[in-house]
Amino acid sequence: MDNFQTVLRFFMNQKATIGYSFMALLTIGGERVFSMVSFQCPCNHDQNFAYGLTFLLGPAGVLLILGLFFSTRLWRLYTGCCLNPMKLCPRGNCFGSLRVFMNIFSGACVAPVMWLCVALLNGTFYECAVSGLDDNLVVDLFCKNKTLKCREELARVPCDRSKLTADERMELLLMFRAQSQILGWCIIIISAFVGLLGTCYTNCRSKVSYLQLTFWKRYVEKEKECFDTFAADYANKLAERNLQSFFENNDPVPFPFPNHRAWEEIS
Amino acid sequence: MDNFQTVLRFFMNQKATIGYSFMALLTIGGERVFSMVSFQCPCNHDQNFAYGLTFLLGPAGVLLILGLFFSTRLWRLYTGCCLNPMKLCPRGNCFGSLRVFMNIFSGACVAPVMWLCVALLNGTFYECAVSGLDDNLVVDLFCKNKTLKCREELARVPCDRSKLTADERMELLLMFRAQSQILGWCIIIISAFVGLLGTCYTNCRSKVSYLQLTFWKRYVEKEKECFDTFAADYANKLAERNLQSFFENNDPVPFPFPNHRAWEEIS
Amino acid sequence: MDNFQTVLRFFMNQKATIGYSFMALLTIGGERVFSMVSFQCPCNHDQNFAYGLTFLLGPAGVLLILGLFFSTRLWRLYTGCCLNPMKLCPRGNCFGSLRVFMNIFSGACVAPVMWLCVALLNGTFYECAVSGLDDNLVVDLFCKNKTLKCREELARVPCDRSKLTADERMELLLMFRAQSQILGWCIIIISAFVGLLGTCYTNCRSKVSYLQLTFWKRYVEKEKECFDTFAADYANKLAERNLQSFFENNDPVPFPFPNHRAWEEIS
Repeated sequence: MDNFQTVLRFFMNQKATIGYSFMALLTIGGERVFSMVSFQCPCNHDQNFAYGLTFLLGPAGVLLILGLFFSTRLWRLYTGCCLNPMKLCPRGNCFGSLRVFMNIFSGACVAPVMWLCVALLNGTFYECAVSGLDDNLVVDLFCKNKTLKCREELARVPCDRSKLTADERMELLLMFRAQSQILGWCIIIISAFVGLLGTCYTNCRSKVSYLQLTFWKRYVEKEKECFDTFAADYANKLAERNLQSFFENNDPVPFPFPNHRAWEEIS
Repeated sequence: MDNFQTVLRFFMNQKATIGYSFMALLTIGGERVFSMVSFQCPCNHDQNFAYGLTFLLGPAGVLLILGLFFSTRLWRLYTGCCLNPMKLCPRGNCFGSLRVFMNIFSGACVAPVMWLCVALLNGTFYECAVSGLDDNLVVDLFCKNKTLKCREELARVPCDRSKLTADERMELLLMFRAQSQILGWCIIIISAFVGLLGTCYTNCRSKVSYLQLTFWKRYVEKEKECFDTFAADYANKLAERNLQSFFENNDPVPFPFPNHRAWEEIS
Repeated sequence: MDNFQTVLRFFMNQKATIGYSFMALLTIGGERVFSMVSFQCPCNHDQNFAYGLTFLLGPAGVLLILGLFFSTRLWRLYTGCCLNPMKLCPRGNCFGSLRVFMNIFSGACVAPVMWLCVALLNGTFYECAVSGLDDNLVVDLFCKNKTLKCREELARVPCDRSKLTADERMELLLMFRAQSQILGWCIIIISAFVGLLGTCYTNCRSKVSYLQLTFWKRYVEKEKECFDTFAADYANKLAERNLQSFFENNDPVPFPFPNHRAWEEIS
């Protein structure tokens, strides 16, 4: 039983890692499903770019918005701000809430960046998008050392219907894929570096030492858990009392309850 | 046993997420079934547009109406309004009930928008609808760089009976599908954005803090549960008393019971 | 039961070894997956070098950053350094923290070096990178004693589409692979040597004897374990007390708690 507890505690400590791994697997699976089932490059001069870009950026945008949606901290900070704008800038400096916003935003960016990386490493969407580019400069770059047909048939390269020779087509496809993957790795490294710098900065500015910080993190977690239990308990008691008084048609018994100001303070 | 409780509580907290996932799966499955079994484009100049649009918007309308049907809040607000129209506009401002209506309407819109997105991402319905368009401008756009036959045969493209070459037909089909999917992603992103803005707005205008809000949400849930139990209990007791007094043919014993006004108030 | 304890203790002692073996297996598996699924040399003069280098160094960079991320010691040293730069250089000599930084960095280098070795021993990435080199000196070296075509077709060697004879192509491929593996073994030997020297140096400079050192290592481990348990316990108690006082709307009972200075000292 003790061993089981140890294993459980180990997994609880690695919660964040497990969560991110799960998210990565989900993203990869989703990308596979999309590029298999739904994605089919139109191979059309006017639409390729818009279509490819939609599949690259659309899901990323949706993931970003979902990330903001499920952020408890955003709503905790945000509630009642219209009625009391002073809350965002207590004592004249808006810097604190700006930093919290940055923090929330960067947290919500994890999933979209993951999607972008997975999609770019696979390369299907980028292929379609870039083959529809109409800019002369780009087309010249792609069709260097190729026959004249290349310029006309560029948009048909992702599909199997171009009039180019199989060799030329293969070459173009491999080039697109290589560009896509290089771009994907660049995004991965840049975002990892930015994440490291950000963590450095926040840790650097914190007034408390590292061990104290870990203690407070654990405290906050525990408090959230306990808050849930306590809230459920109190809500249950309150509901029973109110309904009893309603059905029996008499005055409710007094009930100890935190006032409005106390709620404001703990938020 | 404790572990099981934790798992159960986790799933209860994710109730909304699970519900929406279930709804999404149901929508996708329904769309598949419809487009496989029931949908068959007439490939006819005059009917294509109406037929495609019916399949796109018909189920969406039905889902909207169903959503309004099963909204408890709508009926709670609405009962007795005909007899007492003042109830909708207490103290002269109808703004409050208008906001509640907006709220209910947006909640009922989730399923129709989901249907629209799934149907557009699949593209079968849109294909049929758009190929029946008669407008010269649109047809010119579709048949650019194509043979003259294209204009005549446009309506037959979704079926396999057009006289166009397989290549041309494929090109048109891919173009329609691309348009449909781009449109679908646009709707997804716009509705996600609107949802985020709406949540921002309601949270912004709320007078209570976020934690208090979560507490009240839980309280309302509990109250509903308790109300069910209490109501069943009291109804049982009342029925027994009345029947007893009826069979024993004597006056019913007095019974504490909330009066009519109290019922009105809690609604 | 006693035997089980012995086995468990044996494995606990070999924790580091098991961890490194696991990491090595993961690296090898990851390299295989990447070179099978994702990697496809573009066989293009301009891109080969960038593409191959991206796959060689990109994952290594990501692993380095991840290693720094999960280093507890780095953050323990680093917190609060901006607010109090004196902390990094206590009593005027920055040598101590510099040594700790070196230590942390070398620890984080293990995984990237492992990746480099595995990738070079396999040779796929190096092949692609080196075949895209444009430098005359290198090309001359590669194409010594070969036909003139060799210079033109060098970039197409990793793919199966070059116009060289199968014999010549095979010769070039084997040469590339041999270079890659020699490079890989060099890196392995150099890093092992550097690791040995580093351990020698730190043991040489330590004031305590080897047995004392092993005792301290074990003590530090135990302390960390105990700290976790104690912190969880105290956080739980504190959270319960605060929430109880909040819901019952009265003053919290006093709670013994270490002050800020004590936290600073133990970090």
